[in-house]
Amino acid sequence: MSRLNPLVVVGSVALDTVETTHGKHRDALGGAAVYFSLASRFFARPRMIGVIGNDFPATHVNLIRRHGVDLEGLQRADGPSFRWAGRYSSDGNVAHTLDTQLGVFARFQPKVPLSYQSGSVLFLANIDPDLQVHVLKQMPHALSGGDTMNFWIDQKRSALGKMLRRLHILFVNDQEARSLTGEHNLIRAARALLKLGPKAAIVKKGEHGSMICTREGILFCPPFPVDTVCDPTGAGDSFAGAFMGVLAQSNHSGRAIPMPLLAKACAYGSVVASFTVGEFGVKGLLAMRWCKIQKRLEMLRRLTQFGNGSRT
Amino acid sequence: MSRLNPLVVVGSVALDTVETTHGKHRDALGGAAVYFSLASRFFARPRMIGVIGNDFPATHVNLIRRHGVDLEGLQRADGPSFRWAGRYSSDGNVAHTLDTQLGVFARFQPKVPLSYQSGSVLFLANIDPDLQVHVLKQMPHALSGGDTMNFWIDQKRSALGKMLRRLHILFVNDQEARSLTGEHNLIRAARALLKLGPKAAIVKKGEHGSMICTREGILFCPPFPVDTVCDPTGAGDSFAGAFMGVLAQSNHSGRAIPMPLLAKACAYGSVVASFTVGEFGVKGLLAMRWCKIQKRLEMLRRLTQFGNGSRT
Repeated sequence: MSRLNPLVVVGSVALDTVETTHGKHRDALGGAAVYFSLASRFFARPRMIGVIGNDFPATHVNLIRRHGVDLEGLQRADGPSFRWAGRYSSDGNVAHTLDTQLGVFARFQPKVPLSYQSGSVLFLANIDPDLQVHVLKQMPHALSGGDTMNFWIDQKRSALGKMLRRLHILFVNDQEARSLTGEHNLIRAARALLKLGPKAAIVKKGEHGSMICTREGILFCPPFPVDTVCDPTGAGDSFAGAFMGVLAQSNHSGRAIPMPLLAKACAYGSVVASFTVGEFGVKGLLAMRWCKIQKRLEMLRRLTQFGNGSRT
Repeated sequence: MSRLNPLVVVGSVALDTVETTHGKHRDALGGAAVYFSLASRFFARPRMIGVIGNDFPATHVNLIRRHGVDLEGLQRADGPSFRWAGRYSSDGNVAHTLDTQLGVFARFQPKVPLSYQSGSVLFLANIDPDLQVHVLKQMPHALSGGDTMNFWIDQKRSALGKMLRRLHILFVNDQEARSLTGEHNLIRAARALLKLGPKAAIVKKGEHGSMICTREGILFCPPFPVDTVCDPTGAGDSFAGAFMGVLAQSNHSGRAIPMPLLAKACAYGSVVASFTVGEFGVKGLLAMRWCKIQKRLEMLRRLTQFGNGSRT
């Protein structure tokens, strides 16, 4: 692992209580920064910035560390950890939040440790856009990716705008793309996202795959087909983790990321997310192996070899 | 055009009154068999089986004929023509039927003219499954494609089952795939469709493209990106028209259609449908030229060259 490049992620570290048609798990290891880090570990050296309360199990912390994640940026605060409870409808696509207890996450002030600041790739998971800007200022030369959610789009539009003007790669789902831009047509929405600042917009469409939009054009990436979605929690963060990991590997700056590199990142993102949703919580990610990733990538390539006769 | 193979289509010939955010058109030329035929004309010699009433404008008939469609199978009946009136919501994706007047279509008994019976490729647009079976029996050796809709899935499930057991290629949208199989997950639904009879299931996902499912595997085809959908009417029939046209060109039997051929058919289907939705009614299809089709196909190919570094 020593030759992997560092990849800094800022985001939630959580205890998740999740109910799907496949079962229910209580206080399981979760949070965007956790999914992201574990997903990126075959591509980069993840460095996590987050906060946990004094009720956070040491076994969870050890498990993350054992999987190659640098935890120098993980703060410990006095109070309860961030807890999220959700239920997925029977179609497995829509999460219904049952309860959110911010706990120590409410007063989270992300601080980039000195040892992280040399890192050239950064991911801002879904947190208050003011905090995202605060981190971007601490790593002004990093290639940056970032996520957001409808809550910030509705409530902190101006701060979000500031963040987007500094960000290189924006990850959103189709609904967020629409509400950020006011465009219903996804092609128009993706193009409109670029006008807000990012050099590339990655629109995640769940079971329909994803779409990359840059000034160079638009590219469609198929999903890795999953016929049993056990638990969709963390799919988006896992996708972003592998995606940013591929970019960290490439040593590319943020100015103009070539489309083939983004496409490769997207393909690995789909594959890694397929491991996440196949099991409860982070279990699928923990069981992931490099040879399994490569095998699914090859399957995904075949799934999109359309119109050129190369698949017989 | 003399070297093109014949392609028989059975379906509606209609007068459509359509309202979208881009305007409103009254009693415009429409119907599944019309869109299908006009879409297929660069790939095959369309032969249409349908019915019109005595109020159907001769200019419409002449226009279809002038575009290379054989109308020997077009019946004329005493009574009003089939009329459909619909409105599309502002997102352009959902059609709200305002009125349906079956007219002479209510007593339509499709009859395959003798000159059509030698044809080796057949498409059954969305009509009563009993009538679809009736046509399949008249052309028992043809490679057959077919469409259906939720109405028949709900009301004539048993007849539909009989049709599916005889059909080679089924075209459905994602909702129909789900309601036909009871599977919410699209991958499972597509696989379950094959158990009903067809050798291939083509699941159309609108702006998300389409999915081909055969016993050989699953293949994702991207949509041709359209940023202004003027009128979605006939998009599915146009897709099927180009798709079946490509198969007619290939002289392939229905036993085991190779995936690369299906992929090629799907790609042309997406491209041709993009011409349809870009204008009102059949206008986009009429303005379509072979060189324009090829240009969009090349664009579509580039849009999915993911992960192999060939796009710079």
